[in-house]
Amino acid sequence: MRTIDEVVYSISGLDYKLMEKAQAHLNNLTKPQDSLGKLEDVAELIVGMTRKERPDLEHKVIFTLAADHGVAAEKVSAFPQEVTAQMVYNFLRGGAAINVLAKHIGARVVIVDMGVAVDVGPHPKLLLRKIRHGTKNIAITSAMTRDEAVKTIETGIDIFDNEFKAGINIIGTGEMGIANTTASTAIAAVFTGRKAEELTGRGTGIDDASFKNKIRVVRDALIVNHPNPEDAIDVLAKVGGFEIGGLAGIMLAAASKKVPIVLDGFISGAAALIAYYIEPKAKEYMIASHCSVETGHKFILEHLGLEPLLNLNMRLGEGTGACLGINIAEASVKILTQMATFKGAQVSGRENK
Amino acid sequence: MRTIDEVVYSISGLDYKLMEKAQAHLNNLTKPQDSLGKLEDVAELIVGMTRKERPDLEHKVIFTLAADHGVAAEKVSAFPQEVTAQMVYNFLRGGAAINVLAKHIGARVVIVDMGVAVDVGPHPKLLLRKIRHGTKNIAITSAMTRDEAVKTIETGIDIFDNEFKAGINIIGTGEMGIANTTASTAIAAVFTGRKAEELTGRGTGIDDASFKNKIRVVRDALIVNHPNPEDAIDVLAKVGGFEIGGLAGIMLAAASKKVPIVLDGFISGAAALIAYYIEPKAKEYMIASHCSVETGHKFILEHLGLEPLLNLNMRLGEGTGACLGINIAEASVKILTQMATFKGAQVSGRENK
Repeated sequence: MRTIDEVVYSISGLDYKLMEKAQAHLNNLTKPQDSLGKLEDVAELIVGMTRKERPDLEHKVIFTLAADHGVAAEKVSAFPQEVTAQMVYNFLRGGAAINVLAKHIGARVVIVDMGVAVDVGPHPKLLLRKIRHGTKNIAITSAMTRDEAVKTIETGIDIFDNEFKAGINIIGTGEMGIANTTASTAIAAVFTGRKAEELTGRGTGIDDASFKNKIRVVRDALIVNHPNPEDAIDVLAKVGGFEIGGLAGIMLAAASKKVPIVLDGFISGAAALIAYYIEPKAKEYMIASHCSVETGHKFILEHLGLEPLLNLNMRLGEGTGACLGINIAEASVKILTQMATFKGAQVSGRENK
Repeated sequence: MRTIDEVVYSISGLDYKLMEKAQAHLNNLTKPQDSLGKLEDVAELIVGMTRKERPDLEHKVIFTLAADHGVAAEKVSAFPQEVTAQMVYNFLRGGAAINVLAKHIGARVVIVDMGVAVDVGPHPKLLLRKIRHGTKNIAITSAMTRDEAVKTIETGIDIFDNEFKAGINIIGTGEMGIANTTASTAIAAVFTGRKAEELTGRGTGIDDASFKNKIRVVRDALIVNHPNPEDAIDVLAKVGGFEIGGLAGIMLAAASKKVPIVLDGFISGAAALIAYYIEPKAKEYMIASHCSVETGHKFILEHLGLEPLLNLNMRLGEGTGACLGINIAEASVKILTQMATFKGAQVSGRENK
């Protein structure tokens, strides 16, 4: 099992030389230069990440991590806490949105219990990596201890490393956890410096009174815990969650193995912030799939300097947006690898314009 | 062979009752209400178009129509006219972007010579439906006669009707024709009432001097020809193109058969305007895949009241954006047809929030 330090040590930046070669090849394909816009940008990035001139994204994996949040006791969600476990069963039976969209794009889904409040399974498709039965209520105390935060991230690393052995070319990040937009909002507030009022959204769909209460809860969590923005593990321990830390570990591990990471929505964004503040170079392996309706997401993406591929007014999580993003990424790589060149197809180039 | 009038007569509006049922079903699926945003909207629309409670988009067809434009003589494009025919050969060999992306989404591509300046083929994969060897130069005279314009649209209808027999659940529109952004800009100017300066873009990528010249050419085309905005066939005849009219015919025929139409970029948008002004109800069967970088496209979409699914800075044409749009549409329909309900999955619903 790799430690955080070992993983961080093996993350290096993109291969810009290979990216230039990819750009030159794209310019020789039978289309006006840059006419495929972001598809070309993504293809180039994936070459830079993977160090492969002609990458192949056959093996696609969505990691959907589930965990509960003690802060659910503050009535910050429209759904009761039992829904986390019920949705895990739904994932296992294949009835959730993530199952449908992962199948649509030909990805396999790895479902992990990182800390659901009740015992789920055992089930052949479920990874049992529970840190604890839910975090503590961040409106009152720390979500977890520092040791647990480290263990959470290293569990994420281990989950990735095990799946990597089976073959992974690209990953998508996903999650399930009632009240996890509250924890994510607190994380976003710490790192972006923005106020709870600016960042808080309506999650699964709460009314005005609950919304005001949620802002109060985020504020309380920050006042009670004083998370240190210079120390990402401290932030995870104080206001994070087990699925969030697990995803941060998966992101760091993927970056260390040169595997492109397609981010899902708001909670994945919070995990990306944790990963980024542990090792900024991890960000170079991230592709933002979409911008969520959840208010704080655009600020997270802005903070990370990532531009989303899609704007479909989604706010579900689970990895649903990441699936659609991976599909676009795969299309972009196929453009790079399957199109004819002007010379090969005997098509005339530009005139002097 | 159906006439325009026969086709128009058989276009009816969406089935709103069935759309309400689809909405109710979407609300029962294991996800917060509306949390899949535009995916849910598109699924509902497709139910309304197809009149099927659980539609299936297995048979996907991209129509890529090629034709030349006499106005290429005015040096409005960065590429020489011979590229139209060369790209048709590239389509037939499978080396173009449209081949790669159609294969990615599991669509078949129907390639049609509607009026390429030279003789292409014969080739088993090419439909030879040439109206003439390119339109006339619209900066000087009408693109085609009124009879040719009618024949162009009816040829499009016939192309769709023949393919429909082989099975079609959804179509994408695509085209190839050097200088066809110039014709499309003129069409957009007639129907939106906007000036050539506002609508003209750089097509395949022209420099400043050529750009100014292109604006001049669009202006001349409008002054010389006086297209009548009340008469879409007149507009097509005077400043249109054979691929544009063919696509308008395909759109009308698809609407008459209750088949969803996924629009590609700017030229498809110009064809959509022609179809819309022949029969406004045709618009209800249109889904905008993306907003092109080509300047006038956003104004066309605005005019038609269509919101694009994707913003990927694309401007290639051929049907490339439509492919990605169809893939999103298919994902949306799978959400509707494959997800579990709260009851079926035994997941708790919302609390009183």
